[in-house]
Amino acid sequence: MTKTNPGRFFEDYHVGQVIRHAVPRTVAEGERALYHALYPQRFALYSSDEFAADSGLDSSPLDDLIAFHVVFGKTVPDISLNAVANLGYAEGRWLAPVWPGDTLRAESEVIGLKQNSNGESGVVWVRTRGLNQMGQVVLEYVRWVMVRKRDRDAPAPETVVPKLETVVDPADLVVPEGLNFVEYDDELAGESHRLGDYKIGEKIDHIDGVTVEEAEHMLATRLWQNTAKVHFDATNRADGKRLIYGGHVISLARALSFNGLANAQMMVALNAGAHTNPCFAGDTVRAWSEVLDKAETDAPGVGAIRLRLVATKGDSADFALRGEDGRYLPEVLLDLDYWALMPV
Amino acid sequence: MTKTNPGRFFEDYHVGQVIRHAVPRTVAEGERALYHALYPQRFALYSSDEFAADSGLDSSPLDDLIAFHVVFGKTVPDISLNAVANLGYAEGRWLAPVWPGDTLRAESEVIGLKQNSNGESGVVWVRTRGLNQMGQVVLEYVRWVMVRKRDRDAPAPETVVPKLETVVDPADLVVPEGLNFVEYDDELAGESHRLGDYKIGEKIDHIDGVTVEEAEHMLATRLWQNTAKVHFDATNRADGKRLIYGGHVISLARALSFNGLANAQMMVALNAGAHTNPCFAGDTVRAWSEVLDKAETDAPGVGAIRLRLVATKGDSADFALRGEDGRYLPEVLLDLDYWALMPV
Amino acid sequence: MTKTNPGRFFEDYHVGQVIRHAVPRTVAEGERALYHALYPQRFALYSSDEFAADSGLDSSPLDDLIAFHVVFGKTVPDISLNAVANLGYAEGRWLAPVWPGDTLRAESEVIGLKQNSNGESGVVWVRTRGLNQMGQVVLEYVRWVMVRKRDRDAPAPETVVPKLETVVDPADLVVPEGLNFVEYDDELAGESHRLGDYKIGEKIDHIDGVTVEEAEHMLATRLWQNTAKVHFDATNRADGKRLIYGGHVISLARALSFNGLANAQMMVALNAGAHTNPCFAGDTVRAWSEVLDKAETDAPGVGAIRLRLVATKGDSADFALRGEDGRYLPEVLLDLDYWALMPV
Repeated sequence: MTKTNPGRFFEDYHVGQVIRHAVPRTVAEGERALYHALYPQRFALYSSDEFAADSGLDSSPLDDLIAFHVVFGKTVPDISLNAVANLGYAEGRWLAPVWPGDTLRAESEVIGLKQNSNGESGVVWVRTRGLNQMGQVVLEYVRWVMVRKRDRDAPAPETVVPKLETVVDPADLVVPEGLNFVEYDDELAGESHRLGDYKIGEKIDHIDGVTVEEAEHMLATRLWQNTAKVHFDATNRADGKRLIYGGHVISLARALSFNGLANAQMMVALNAGAHTNPCFAGDTVRAWSEVLDKAETDAPGVGAIRLRLVATKGDSADFALRGEDGRYLPEVLLDLDYWALMPV
Repeated sequence: MTKTNPGRFFEDYHVGQVIRHAVPRTVAEGERALYHALYPQRFALYSSDEFAADSGLDSSPLDDLIAFHVVFGKTVPDISLNAVANLGYAEGRWLAPVWPGDTLRAESEVIGLKQNSNGESGVVWVRTRGLNQMGQVVLEYVRWVMVRKRDRDAPAPETVVPKLETVVDPADLVVPEGLNFVEYDDELAGESHRLGDYKIGEKIDHIDGVTVEEAEHMLATRLWQNTAKVHFDATNRADGKRLIYGGHVISLARALSFNGLANAQMMVALNAGAHTNPCFAGDTVRAWSEVLDKAETDAPGVGAIRLRLVATKGDSADFALRGEDGRYLPEVLLDLDYWALMPV
Repeated sequence: MTKTNPGRFFEDYHVGQVIRHAVPRTVAEGERALYHALYPQRFALYSSDEFAADSGLDSSPLDDLIAFHVVFGKTVPDISLNAVANLGYAEGRWLAPVWPGDTLRAESEVIGLKQNSNGESGVVWVRTRGLNQMGQVVLEYVRWVMVRKRDRDAPAPETVVPKLETVVDPADLVVPEGLNFVEYDDELAGESHRLGDYKIGEKIDHIDGVTVEEAEHMLATRLWQNTAKVHFDATNRADGKRLIYGGHVISLARALSFNGLANAQMMVALNAGAHTNPCFAGDTVRAWSEVLDKAETDAPGVGAIRLRLVATKGDSADFALRGEDGRYLPEVLLDLDYWALMPV
């Protein structure tokens, strides 16, 4: 009997199965500092206890994507160790802030299965929840991946394709308790553009570029306890490059979006997302955003903005996304659709 | 209207203007750990709560240069985004320790302007203050930079060149409240040389060298929320190298100076400084120091030593600085003049 | 008189000499986060305050190897600055957990000396202790190194070769106060194999590989305040590579061993260890383990497992160790013998 984890194959999943993921993780100021060293993150609410307090919170929560990466990382050994592709995200919501000292664990429920026609793999849909030490769900999202079969001849499961919302209804967005932007200080936040200053359809080139090094993405991906071999083992490829964890690109792009969207303070929903092309060390990542929608919330002074966030290893000024054939251009790394909270 | 920050140009400054810089930042143990991973820092007062307590402080403050880098980083989007050159520092003083959990913000007052004769740029002098969450000034310094004009035809402002002290008067040095070196433990500090053992004019080769990697200086520069593109974007240069933030070299050299100056515990004044040549990944940084002056303070057992700190990518044993033409040698990266506190 | 530390030479040691090492160090959450970014560490007891509390501890202690590296690092300027080789370890024991906020210092007693027949160097045996701020010994181990003589003609000291145990007696293992594995949660820990599932002589290939970058090992080695020049200065070698601190390889291998030994939670003794070949950036480190022994402890549910941990830059699936000549194979980087605590 082998003692090591072979990962799950397609036939190891069944609809309704709940997987408790291993290795809970306490996150604190150290993770925050590393996050700010790894990504050019400047959103004031995640940078300053004072700014957070002036916005009605007890102190500055840990960056919303720290919660995402830690929870995602926990799922890798159970969900995507034998995955061929990470196909999509939907119905993601941040439900409570994560504070320094909180301990996160994760569990996933299998909500869909569909064997591919080639009989060699299938698509698995899971709804993943991240919970804190009080059992409170801090984050949930649906992800679907293509997973190899162990045995080509294993029978196909009944096909269940979950019905997923294409966008989180703004009425379902959860604003952290106490949050308000009544005394919001634009100058300290870094920009004066508020929700009313953005038009639906408006595109913003975030200008700056960050060239990625192997050491950086590996530090990050280890910090999130993501165990996928392709991120760490240079012997997988002739050129010695390691495939960069898609979440690293999300964090880079979101941080770069500060320049033009400094007031899109908190991510509260992940509507959809595609890692459209692989990213490697040496790539210079840039980002642009498109305003997709705007909404109100019940919290004083707090509105919501729905954004498309695109990461590219090419130019960001041309807002390139898809070719004439409708496919993503080869330089596009990420196409993410999310809701953020912004002062009105 | 563009939403992104174009930075200020020369004609956007006027004498007396006060700029509140964006994005306050809470700094804590995570920043300390990263500082100690990024630089070979060993000064005991910044390494050990016990050593700091034995020196009359509540606990170990965050490294003096953490305060400097965070404050400096905040000024970049407003002061040096369109800077052609970082010309000098003067009248820098650390006025209060920064403790883990403190939140720093920064503001700068324009104290001088002088358009260059070519009409394409000008020199801007600012006095920058770093403040903690209680509004206490923890650090102040004057910096002057050469900034491009947006419009060559914009009229030149009245020339105002501030009168700056060439060295901070030792009577103006601020010793942190409670600090004393009465029961100073040389053995734990690492060396037995005290103020009386150093002679004015004495030069010390700090021997050790550190070869810098791209990932390291980018992690550091992001941690300080310094947004200057040249540090991160490899597409700026044909060789893919990124210009290393000058403050990274200051921290490397100061940390290397432990070997020979282990008791120069706290930086309390920055008299002058020049980033004399660019530093790139692959360079091996070494350092040497020259004792420029010595002084007493009112705190028990605490003296002050004025040091020239030189960083070089060449040899440090020859104490090379300037060529026969009086210009800095090409291997010299930094020429810094500061006061530090040292047991008498 | 030179102000810098020339390090000790062989004739500077005498049996019975006690050296208090410089620069005490407060370690906290920042060091933990960096440890988890630098190594693929997933042992639940060091990852989650909740998991540690469920195991009878107040909270999650800092990783056992953080204590080792910090203590080891302190000894370098006094013990191994002029060392030609790091020859071995013995009688190592972790005696108390290190908690965030603890301050560590170190001292070493010279317990053996033997001049080499060539008269140019000699072997120095030291017993090193790491102490916390309450003076409690948290870690102790014997290390021996070959050190150069300053003066070939200096007389040889009397030869004293200490008698060292080849393995720490399981009766001497110290289980942290309160620790128990009565309600141990295999699922959260990541694997279901407990002490009874391992057979003496069993070998486990830990499968995963990590390719090391220069920036990573330098960040780590600086964090441990290890000052050995060979780790940082690329000008020491024509190829610009830096020799990786042997302890970095220990931490990598131990972290990789999670996959197959996830329940070998705490290192409690270091029986022996050899850095068998140098490791350089670009090497892909893999690991395998062999079960050498098993033992009981007095703590409820807590057993001990003695493991050989081998790091290799080659394949780990073939369990290669020594050639036919009895010498370590060139791809073997580390051969470590330790005791860990594991649920029965």
